Amino acid sequence: MTISLPQLGSLGFVPIPDVDEALRDAAQRRLDRLTKPLGSLGLLEPLAAQVCAIQSNLLPQIRHPVALVFAADHGVATRGVSAYPSAVTLQMVANFLRGGAAISVLARLEDMSLWIVDAGVDGDCGAHPRLIDAKIRRGTRDFVEGPAMTLAECRESLRRGRAALEQVCEHSNAHEHSNAVVFGEMGIGNTASAALLMHAISGHALSDCVGRGTGLDDAGLTRKRAILAAAVARCAPPSDAVELLAEFGGFEIAMLVGAILAAAARRMLVVIDGFTVTVAAAVAARIEPAVLHYCVFGHVSAEFGHNALLRHLGVRPLLDFGMRLGEGSGAALAMSTVRAALALFTEMATFEAAGVSDRS
Amino acid sequence: MTISLPQLGSLGFVPIPDVDEALRDAAQRRLDRLTKPLGSLGLLEPLAAQVCAIQSNLLPQIRHPVALVFAADHGVATRGVSAYPSAVTLQMVANFLRGGAAISVLARLEDMSLWIVDAGVDGDCGAHPRLIDAKIRRGTRDFVEGPAMTLAECRESLRRGRAALEQVCEHSNAHEHSNAVVFGEMGIGNTASAALLMHAISGHALSDCVGRGTGLDDAGLTRKRAILAAAVARCAPPSDAVELLAEFGGFEIAMLVGAILAAAARRMLVVIDGFTVTVAAAVAARIEPAVLHYCVFGHVSAEFGHNALLRHLGVRPLLDFGMRLGEGSGAALAMSTVRAALALFTEMATFEAAGVSDRS
Repeated sequence: MTISLPQLGSLGFVPIPDVDEALRDAAQRRLDRLTKPLGSLGLLEPLAAQVCAIQSNLLPQIRHPVALVFAADHGVATRGVSAYPSAVTLQMVANFLRGGAAISVLARLEDMSLWIVDAGVDGDCGAHPRLIDAKIRRGTRDFVEGPAMTLAECRESLRRGRAALEQVCEHSNAHEHSNAVVFGEMGIGNTASAALLMHAISGHALSDCVGRGTGLDDAGLTRKRAILAAAVARCAPPSDAVELLAEFGGFEIAMLVGAILAAAARRMLVVIDGFTVTVAAAVAARIEPAVLHYCVFGHVSAEFGHNALLRHLGVRPLLDFGMRLGEGSGAALAMSTVRAALALFTEMATFEAAGVSDRS
Repeated sequence: MTISLPQLGSLGFVPIPDVDEALRDAAQRRLDRLTKPLGSLGLLEPLAAQVCAIQSNLLPQIRHPVALVFAADHGVATRGVSAYPSAVTLQMVANFLRGGAAISVLARLEDMSLWIVDAGVDGDCGAHPRLIDAKIRRGTRDFVEGPAMTLAECRESLRRGRAALEQVCEHSNAHEHSNAVVFGEMGIGNTASAALLMHAISGHALSDCVGRGTGLDDAGLTRKRAILAAAVARCAPPSDAVELLAEFGGFEIAMLVGAILAAAARRMLVVIDGFTVTVAAAVAARIEPAVLHYCVFGHVSAEFGHNALLRHLGVRPLLDFGMRLGEGSGAALAMSTVRAALALFTEMATFEAAGVSDRS
């Protein structure tokens, strides 16, 4: 049995509306009249048309975009599934807020307000105007020994993810809410959790879902694979999305699922980052497939498994820089691609207006 | 015999200095200390290090970037090698200057000043503050019947390309010259010319160099291949770069070669666009291989042959959006990638400064 969005109604989730397919068609007709060879803007053409369909408007625009990064720790990290110690999660939260991390730099560059959600960091993140305390627990339990979280904790994570999204979108501007969000994550060990979720959702062999994360060496990768095999041996992945998230975590992933569903329900443009955020999008799509109509996949990361997951979802990423640092960094870079697509769509002249001869 | 840059000295060309390899190494050492997993910024890391090496500075920056588009017509176009009529070249120059073309929109978005060079348009481009009249002739001669231009015209094209580059870089700001340039082209029929040049320079079979340009159908592609085969049957491609350019044109490509050499001589960052501009870069590299150290390849276009040409040059493009409209559009989009790479390089915190634990 698969959980459906109506079943999440008790957590405050509302249905996701259809995007406007008539507007998508109208957008493509306009693209075909612009002063360029037919189809020559490549991926930027369906991208512009998608934003038109989301916004139901032939004058699409990005308003007050936000970057929202969910951070949490993972019980399984003590087993050595990452090249970095768990303490880095808390340290990086501080780095995000002080402005020194990659996502801090890119959010400034792209004129996005950056918000961090403490989704379950193993430590005290302190207070900051753009830090949201959504912590349920200081990290998940070790999923090799038992469920990463309880079902109640998982449902609460979905709800808090939704609440965080709504808070930042409404706070971004007093008079006009944000209509675009870049999602990111930070959590030492979270590609281990994400690999289990991909395995369960895509049906790919576990070995096709497990990568080096922040940079495991060969021995570390072998160890990570064995640990994840032990988790699956303990508990076959549940088919229900909420039970699956509870079994294998993490808190940041569950909150991302809630936030992605909530953003689509608000008809926002959702820019998905790398492997872990894409896994969250895949879980959200398991709950409500229509969520994908609101998603742009910012990049394909170097993390093994990401490309296969994108293919499983039937989507094509915008950028391929071989990046693998998470935080929403790839999605933030893709925001400039979205802006360029919209500028070309709205500002280019048509053949008629420019007096340019069309195809002979 | 291959022409060398010293032989071009009489046309005003000066030697291209080496980039600063010690700075490139120092840049990589800084990148390894930033708060991210080692190498996790992917292509953005060597990109930032390249700009450091070009500028010989660990605080690299883009100053007053310009987009410089060379436009010209082609005698061979009357044979039907393009999906569009030659009149479009002149019409698009007007569109560039009125602000309605793709490159007009992207130059505004990326805060670059856009300059157009009439390198040999078959018509009167009129006058405009950002239009440079470098016309030698109203289009090349048909290279199926004889050389596209005389050797004297070709040498003059190289010189005028250099002069145009110098003019826009020095004009861009009264107190500080531009240090980055995006190159583009416009010329109905110019992928035919570019295909012959690629064939001559790379040694690839002619059929591997010929694509659909602005969108030829199958019959048009067959016709284009036959026309280019006839040109090669008339005259085996000369090995000398200037003779080769004179034989197969076009004026915008020859001026691009001159401008690329001149930009590298000024230690500018050179952002190369799609198939035709990459062919110009390949010709420039035949004259002086060191020019490639100053070049960033903005994207791989959908034009058949571009990917193989990039491989021949041993370079990796930044973007792959399946675009194919020229004008410098792909390179202009890549300027935002360059800016992001430099912002990350200069603004991210180091592990020490941020108090973040390095690898365990």
